Amino acid sequence: MTRTVLESKSRTVVIGFDEPFCVIGERINPTGRKKLAAELEAGDFSTVERDALEQVACGAMVLDVNAGVVYNSNPDPNQTEPPLMRRMVELVQGLVDVPLCIDSSVPGALEAGLAAAEGRPLLNSVTGEEERLERVLPLVRKYNVPVVAISNDDTGISEDPDVRFAVAKKIVQRAADFGIPACDIVVDPLVMPVGAMASAGQQVFALVRRLRDELGVNTTCGASNISFGLPHRHGINAAFLPMAIGAGMTSAIMNPIRPVEMEAVRAANFLMNHDPNGGEWIRFSRVLDQVAEGTPFADASQAAAEAGAGRGGRRRRRG
Amino acid sequence: MTRTVLESKSRTVVIGFDEPFCVIGERINPTGRKKLAAELEAGDFSTVERDALEQVACGAMVLDVNAGVVYNSNPDPNQTEPPLMRRMVELVQGLVDVPLCIDSSVPGALEAGLAAAEGRPLLNSVTGEEERLERVLPLVRKYNVPVVAISNDDTGISEDPDVRFAVAKKIVQRAADFGIPACDIVVDPLVMPVGAMASAGQQVFALVRRLRDELGVNTTCGASNISFGLPHRHGINAAFLPMAIGAGMTSAIMNPIRPVEMEAVRAANFLMNHDPNGGEWIRFSRVLDQVAEGTPFADASQAAAEAGAGRGGRRRRRG
Repeated sequence: MTRTVLESKSRTVVIGFDEPFCVIGERINPTGRKKLAAELEAGDFSTVERDALEQVACGAMVLDVNAGVVYNSNPDPNQTEPPLMRRMVELVQGLVDVPLCIDSSVPGALEAGLAAAEGRPLLNSVTGEEERLERVLPLVRKYNVPVVAISNDDTGISEDPDVRFAVAKKIVQRAADFGIPACDIVVDPLVMPVGAMASAGQQVFALVRRLRDELGVNTTCGASNISFGLPHRHGINAAFLPMAIGAGMTSAIMNPIRPVEMEAVRAANFLMNHDPNGGEWIRFSRVLDQVAEGTPFADASQAAAEAGAGRGGRRRRRG
Repeated sequence: MTRTVLESKSRTVVIGFDEPFCVIGERINPTGRKKLAAELEAGDFSTVERDALEQVACGAMVLDVNAGVVYNSNPDPNQTEPPLMRRMVELVQGLVDVPLCIDSSVPGALEAGLAAAEGRPLLNSVTGEEERLERVLPLVRKYNVPVVAISNDDTGISEDPDVRFAVAKKIVQRAADFGIPACDIVVDPLVMPVGAMASAGQQVFALVRRLRDELGVNTTCGASNISFGLPHRHGINAAFLPMAIGAGMTSAIMNPIRPVEMEAVRAANFLMNHDPNGGEWIRFSRVLDQVAEGTPFADASQAAAEAGAGRGGRRRRRG
């Protein structure tokens, strides 16, 4: 049974076929967030702090940390991103005790994040591109961490799911050459917007089944890509996530601040028999009751988490 | 490719693997609706009329009609239900032009409904019980209609999905003996409440895949059973429907008056590539906009349907 083990300073999170869906919070990422990018260049980490606390309160089990700011004062991210990544990793793991997902296209920033992270973070990402394989897989090996494998290669992103499967298979094989087991590869089969490619949903569902059945790997995706450009995106996302989970997807990089998507994930966990006796669903339904009465989702979630901690203490703390 | 063809006076609805999910409106049913039962015994059909119009406005493609009232004045439904069924069928098909689903446990009421219905209704239901097979399959043959096959038999409802599959297979084989093709059998694999049986969701998803792959039949279910007894039922239903659709389920008997469930079905249709260019989703998103502004769902749906009819006329009208 494939289990991808992530760790923070004191907690373990397992991505696996028999585990609740792993929600990786996507918010700590300046890509497309101009205000956050400007704050980071100015040394203001208040949004990062808030995003870390809120996402964990809302149910994120892992936090993605991306330091991809192009500084106005220095346009070379190879110089600026590694120290920013280190600072952000230290800040976030000082605030919340969840495993991190070190996310960068700059190899130096990946290594800076790996060096700074406590526990066993997820590395994001390797692709099927030759240069990327040769740069990232040694880091994966050196730090003994799992890695997200995105199924594009030097020819780009194929619209043919068979090609994307073949790229994923190549990455798994190359990783094996480095001594990295398949359970430490979390494949992102690439989610296209269904508004641009009508078969996008079905491609993902079919790919996830194949990746699980034929390669035995866990999977992830940028879930909100599916609804790009469409009205009522959250409605599309809230159907996509249960369908992907039903097909076998085991994690997603997504926005946990939205109650609609988190409700869909928690309901899907219950329906996959990953929520024994519905305890998590019943707790979550009390949060939804409070949201219906006007309490912000993050506040209601935080209060419920604290009430739970008061009753039984934090769970899954390592000995 | 399996296609179950239903007809009203002038419209055709196809249940099929390559068709949008068929929403069968469940509301016209006095079971558990004491007020409606009393109205029907008193000859008051105002609730039936409203339920017919509202359900079709909200997107029901087929309407279930159940006349299962036990009269206080006459406790024998074999006497009272057939004339009530005939009257309800005539009333509903005079109001709305959608195929009907004639729903009764009383064989005389099934035949009364079949005799009264225009077009090609769906019969609901046969089971694997010997007496029921011998009573209902001849009606299916005589009227050349499709039938819902519920996967229980003389031993009751099995908690073992393999047994439920075997019952469905037996019904399909017995139907074949009567000259009824598999495409006219719509199997209900029976949905248990996930609050009572933790594997209920996974059982259904696995059964639907097998029924489709091994027997080549369409499927249906009473969708809201899954959430029986749970808080925030609509959240469970809204995840269950996309997951069932992703597994291959092609119809459900459900309440179309609820925007949450209908949003989930329409999003799932889009993700299954059964909504070319997302046209239905975009139209539906305008309905959701109006609901967000306070318009009742049925009213907003009706207005959108009329605007659509004004643009392109009714679709799928038979020649």
